Amino acid sequence: MSTLFKKLRIHQVFGANTNVGKTILTTSLVRASAQRGKKVFYLKPVSTGPLEDADDNHVNRYTGKYATLISSECLFRFDEPVSPHLAVKMKGADGDAPSDEIFVDSIASRIRHHAKDCSNLAHMYVETAGGVHSPALSGTSQADCYRPLFLPTVLIGDSQLGGISTTISSYESLLLRGYNVDAVVLFRDEYYRNWEYLKPYFAERGIFLETVPPPPPQLANPAEDFLSTDNYYESLVTEDGEIQGIGSVVDHLDTCHVQRLQELESMPRRALDSIWWPFVQHGLVKGGKDVNVIDSAHADFFSVSNKTALEDASSNQSILAPQYDGSASWWTQTFGHAHPSLTMAAAKASGRYGHVMFPQAVHLPALKLAERLIQHGPGKGWASRAFFSDNGSTGMEVAIKMALRAFALRQHPSLKNDEKKELGILGLKGSYHGDTIGAMDACEEGVYTCEWHNAKGFWFDPPTVGIKDGDVSISLPASLTSIPHSESVKAESLTWVYEVENRLHTPLARAYAMYITRALEALKQRGGPTIAALVLEPLLMGAGGMLFVDPLFQRVLIDTVRGRRSGSSSQWSGIPVIFDEVFVGLNRIGMESSGPLLGVFPDISVNAKVLTGGLLPLAVTLTSKSIFEAFLSDNKAEALLHGHSYTAHPIGCEVANETLAMIDKLALSDDWIAAQGRWARDNGQPSSVWSLWDPGFVTAVSKLPQVREVMTMGSVLAIKVQDHAAGYTSQSAQALFNVLNLVPSEDGTLSVAPGGAPFGVHFRTLGDVAYFITSLNTGESVIRSIEDRIWTTLTST
Amino acid sequence: MSTLFKKLRIHQVFGANTNVGKTILTTSLVRASAQRGKKVFYLKPVSTGPLEDADDNHVNRYTGKYATLISSECLFRFDEPVSPHLAVKMKGADGDAPSDEIFVDSIASRIRHHAKDCSNLAHMYVETAGGVHSPALSGTSQADCYRPLFLPTVLIGDSQLGGISTTISSYESLLLRGYNVDAVVLFRDEYYRNWEYLKPYFAERGIFLETVPPPPPQLANPAEDFLSTDNYYESLVTEDGEIQGIGSVVDHLDTCHVQRLQELESMPRRALDSIWWPFVQHGLVKGGKDVNVIDSAHADFFSVSNKTALEDASSNQSILAPQYDGSASWWTQTFGHAHPSLTMAAAKASGRYGHVMFPQAVHLPALKLAERLIQHGPGKGWASRAFFSDNGSTGMEVAIKMALRAFALRQHPSLKNDEKKELGILGLKGSYHGDTIGAMDACEEGVYTCEWHNAKGFWFDPPTVGIKDGDVSISLPASLTSIPHSESVKAESLTWVYEVENRLHTPLARAYAMYITRALEALKQRGGPTIAALVLEPLLMGAGGMLFVDPLFQRVLIDTVRGRRSGSSSQWSGIPVIFDEVFVGLNRIGMESSGPLLGVFPDISVNAKVLTGGLLPLAVTLTSKSIFEAFLSDNKAEALLHGHSYTAHPIGCEVANETLAMIDKLALSDDWIAAQGRWARDNGQPSSVWSLWDPGFVTAVSKLPQVREVMTMGSVLAIKVQDHAAGYTSQSAQALFNVLNLVPSEDGTLSVAPGGAPFGVHFRTLGDVAYFITSLNTGESVIRSIEDRIWTTLTST
Repeated sequence: MSTLFKKLRIHQVFGANTNVGKTILTTSLVRASAQRGKKVFYLKPVSTGPLEDADDNHVNRYTGKYATLISSECLFRFDEPVSPHLAVKMKGADGDAPSDEIFVDSIASRIRHHAKDCSNLAHMYVETAGGVHSPALSGTSQADCYRPLFLPTVLIGDSQLGGISTTISSYESLLLRGYNVDAVVLFRDEYYRNWEYLKPYFAERGIFLETVPPPPPQLANPAEDFLSTDNYYESLVTEDGEIQGIGSVVDHLDTCHVQRLQELESMPRRALDSIWWPFVQHGLVKGGKDVNVIDSAHADFFSVSNKTALEDASSNQSILAPQYDGSASWWTQTFGHAHPSLTMAAAKASGRYGHVMFPQAVHLPALKLAERLIQHGPGKGWASRAFFSDNGSTGMEVAIKMALRAFALRQHPSLKNDEKKELGILGLKGSYHGDTIGAMDACEEGVYTCEWHNAKGFWFDPPTVGIKDGDVSISLPASLTSIPHSESVKAESLTWVYEVENRLHTPLARAYAMYITRALEALKQRGGPTIAALVLEPLLMGAGGMLFVDPLFQRVLIDTVRGRRSGSSSQWSGIPVIFDEVFVGLNRIGMESSGPLLGVFPDISVNAKVLTGGLLPLAVTLTSKSIFEAFLSDNKAEALLHGHSYTAHPIGCEVANETLAMIDKLALSDDWIAAQGRWARDNGQPSSVWSLWDPGFVTAVSKLPQVREVMTMGSVLAIKVQDHAAGYTSQSAQALFNVLNLVPSEDGTLSVAPGGAPFGVHFRTLGDVAYFITSLNTGESVIRSIEDRIWTTLTST
Repeated sequence: MSTLFKKLRIHQVFGANTNVGKTILTTSLVRASAQRGKKVFYLKPVSTGPLEDADDNHVNRYTGKYATLISSECLFRFDEPVSPHLAVKMKGADGDAPSDEIFVDSIASRIRHHAKDCSNLAHMYVETAGGVHSPALSGTSQADCYRPLFLPTVLIGDSQLGGISTTISSYESLLLRGYNVDAVVLFRDEYYRNWEYLKPYFAERGIFLETVPPPPPQLANPAEDFLSTDNYYESLVTEDGEIQGIGSVVDHLDTCHVQRLQELESMPRRALDSIWWPFVQHGLVKGGKDVNVIDSAHADFFSVSNKTALEDASSNQSILAPQYDGSASWWTQTFGHAHPSLTMAAAKASGRYGHVMFPQAVHLPALKLAERLIQHGPGKGWASRAFFSDNGSTGMEVAIKMALRAFALRQHPSLKNDEKKELGILGLKGSYHGDTIGAMDACEEGVYTCEWHNAKGFWFDPPTVGIKDGDVSISLPASLTSIPHSESVKAESLTWVYEVENRLHTPLARAYAMYITRALEALKQRGGPTIAALVLEPLLMGAGGMLFVDPLFQRVLIDTVRGRRSGSSSQWSGIPVIFDEVFVGLNRIGMESSGPLLGVFPDISVNAKVLTGGLLPLAVTLTSKSIFEAFLSDNKAEALLHGHSYTAHPIGCEVANETLAMIDKLALSDDWIAAQGRWARDNGQPSSVWSLWDPGFVTAVSKLPQVREVMTMGSVLAIKVQDHAAGYTSQSAQALFNVLNLVPSEDGTLSVAPGGAPFGVHFRTLGDVAYFITSLNTGESVIRSIEDRIWTTLTST
């Protein structure tokens, strides 16, 4: 990840094209830094041609003159890595071009190595090869390949014919990767005068631009060319020893460096002065040290400021360190942070539409998304309509409004207005459907609810699935054990638990049915609310404490409330059933939707989070035709009068389309096939449940004494710790795993974080439950590494 | 705007750089189209050098051979426009380079002119100049300048050294403008073999790439060069008469054209089959003709499909027509659609962060936004914290939760749990705070509310401001006239109405105070709810019917509920006051926030809509320190436990920062200064209220018999029509203005829409109120033109 040192100011140099003078201008930057008395490092990771030696000589000659150390080095000459830290990782690469990972690790290692030697501010220039999108050794483009390092950037502009266009396009390609372009430098070509156009262009964007006199034409004879070029460098030096143009660039880059450090230093205090965080008790935030300053993010890692290093004036540690995003940023990340494909999808929709209003209108991104979800997505087989809103909570409010209307209409006119207000929801204890007040009213009163909360409905204690001591078992709530049954039911295997159809005629299924029926009857007898809808988070209740509900219970519950379906199966029966798949949907737990596993479809379902790949908010509520028809009339006031300004915003829809297409590819990937293989049945047949987490690791964790229960599906791993004071406010899981947050000290090995630096793990807990969620495409090496960290934490306490 | 004809397939040709063979390859495309027997138009809007004549000759020579009409033309040779349609617009340009508007109008005019002559499928190629970002005549880059036309695109790739990078960067610059790149074509250079890399690269992105043998080197002697180039063209022709490479491109472009037409044709039906629209009674949607198919958008215009032309097989009208976005897409548009600066801001944040989780964390886009809003924005002078959520409705739920807690805590322990549930809101009739159920509960029951709605509070009938027969008056509700007062109060001027301080000691102010005090006492006496907060949309209530509330009434109401402030003015007093500025805030009505005008600040306020410039959802709730402190303790459960997955998503925050910076510039623009001048006081001093709409027009409209009242502020114009059945479900305004939707027939003049084609006006009504909202940067010519259309509509009925 990003490296940033107080005493080593590093810039990468990108070119707007090949032959724009990148090496000459970088050499000039090196010389100007040396002229200012700085130690300078000139890192040219890849050597691409015979000019290289001459460049080195230019640099070295200059070294002598100014008597400061200038280190000029190349990491991959003729594809041969020279970084000594790479021995382990290189095994198996045998002569192949290095992977992006090795390439980035090599550069980062050299940077860390040099940074240790800097006692005063030194400069480093990392020169990339070719233009911004010229292929790197692995074939990835320069701009993408260098991205994990997130180095501040100098763009060498193109002073030739057409150079205005190539310079701006290159800038935009850098911008699409989030780079900070600190300066644009180009030759002052007096014929094309591109700088006349580009200077105000970049000034308007707050970017410094400087020109340098152009070099002499290249000569055929290398010796003559060397002399000519050297004379050129000398000619740049003015009478007062300053270097024309380039000197001011070096000073500007120093200013940018100082500002960046100051900014990082000031951010915690400024955040504490201006921001009110969600779900944070500010009274427990003890000061700046408790604020996670996220400077950038890439793949599964944040790049965060290391406050100890930042406050120590003499530190030569990196101010920025990688931090594993252990909650997938509140369960949203799908392909890791800042994936270029999602950025491109967002940019394309923004460029074509911006936002356009949606009622009675259609645009391609929304239409394609609606069709994809209904015909080939979670709505396949039952849904006929997609209704867009902004987040899971609003999506659920829409779902509730749909269900209430459908139910009320069927009861009409037996239902009075006051009775409508008190219509109830049937659900499970521990449910959570978002933070808006209406979505909250579909849940029991609890820690999350506000003054206005009015719990409307009835909630069952659910039986849950967990692994303890290597055995899978179903824990039954007290209300159920009185049926009578034991406290828990031992399951043959996870596969067995999730083969719902096979379990429909077991005694437990009958016990569930009886329990549900009796509870509903009792509710009626004691004058409980009229139940208008069943609202479930299928299989896994997230915010309620990562509760893996016995799927059989949910199936029996659905069957019970629906009763026997009448002739037309497209009509909802009994009460409408809503699946809140905001968290579990779209492969978060290894399946696109839960209907096929449960063997029943909902009448309404909601997706969000993964829907937009972890980039920005969008939600969709899917419904069956019969729910839709409840709002159909010739009276406008009877329509679903719910909408948000940015309903179906094209950016969100286009990003969602790209996300779903990428998930389709991921489903065929080696990583997924391997993971599914690890969780296959004994006979090798695929199981309906699988996880990216390793079964051996999960079993081992389940046997530890500190662990009460563990469970995993898809990208989710939940570890419930032994704790007598469970619940949201319990700090037991946080306390147990806190050490994961710390950055281990460097031990000479390279971590799995991009760049290989040691990293801390950012994670969230829910009382006595610690959970870890990967992106859907998190690589095996990263997951194994996190497993190791968890294991070490658990076994060393 | 976009033009698209059934019988004229048009592609614009962009180059990845200059000298990539754009003209040669476009000529090859022209020849290949001719070889297929098509009529071909070769439009090269700008001539850039002496090669031009030779190119024309190449084309013309070929014409003879294939005996199909090939028209080759250049619109701006030596900066001299040749389009006859431009006479009016060109006046005053006198030798200056044509503006982008004239440039685009010229091209669009030629396209429409030629399209009329096509009885069979013809082809047109529009060749741009230089690279994608080479400056056009006005100085704008090619990619931005051509954007209003939104033509399908062929990108000529770069086959030379560095060409992989320039080709990909150029593609990304086109993508940032939303262009559909139908094909990439480049020379098959056997040395650099860029195509080997680029072909799979573009295939992965679904883009067709083809190579063509490279041309001979350019010769110094023009005659020899002509012959050599012509021989090259001939050499491309294979034995079966096919043209190598380029023939398949032409066929592919034809396929793209057909698919695009089919897509547009199928979209209405597909939308009707899959989408559930917000605020739409599907039962009233009569079929595909009622569906607005938005193909793209630019500035203040959608580009929508013209279904009549689409269904008529022999039509030579454009399938796409501009449509003025008369509601600013539900009050969101700030700088028009698809503004490149917002796209860049979104792309940059996406590239740097993607999304990163926010609790106890900070990233620059969110921090800068919070600080900007608090220190120099609507929170200036009173707010200390920013809380982020996803839209106006969630922002208001957050505001309500804050106010309820602050109030309940101060009453503690006198308030019981059940009483907390029934705490009430004080507000105005006609209020609207968003569609989530909690936000709805802060309003009266009405057409927008759902089964669960539980109106919590008390709402006053507000006095409103309007202009009738040229006079400004304040209409008093019946409940107030009994004080006694007449039905309405005539005001000296709009300025007078909004000088609240001057009116504080008038008899009307005393009448308001008495009315409010008595109503509150009566509420108490009849056991009404305990009022916990005052919630107002300051100055203008939008969804309730564009009601401009007398600011004096709101001021007196605030003063009354607050009572005398105690010593510390930073403490909220009486009850917390919430300003819902989702609609009116951030200059929508000509001021950043309403506090300065009202002379009082809120304790909590909410912004959204304009906050993100009309691009994507984000909301912010600002609060004072004393509200924040109500949640401060050492108990996590007492924190504000509200948050959404994408809280403070970096893209939204960065777009908001860009938006606010752009508004700051706009405030100094000639257009705004001119508009403010038109609304200045008689003595020339600026008024506190002003509008982008013309005062003369507003006065004239107010005198029409069909108009009951008109009112304007900032970008908003509201016209209340004479109607005895007012209310949301009334169709009177819609019926009166329906004709605005229609596209006028072409009369030889150029419209103000980009490209100059006639356009319809898309607008929304609220019962008996028609309203029109511009972007904040909508130009004078566009607004005057819309005023003309409104005037014509009103005076011809």
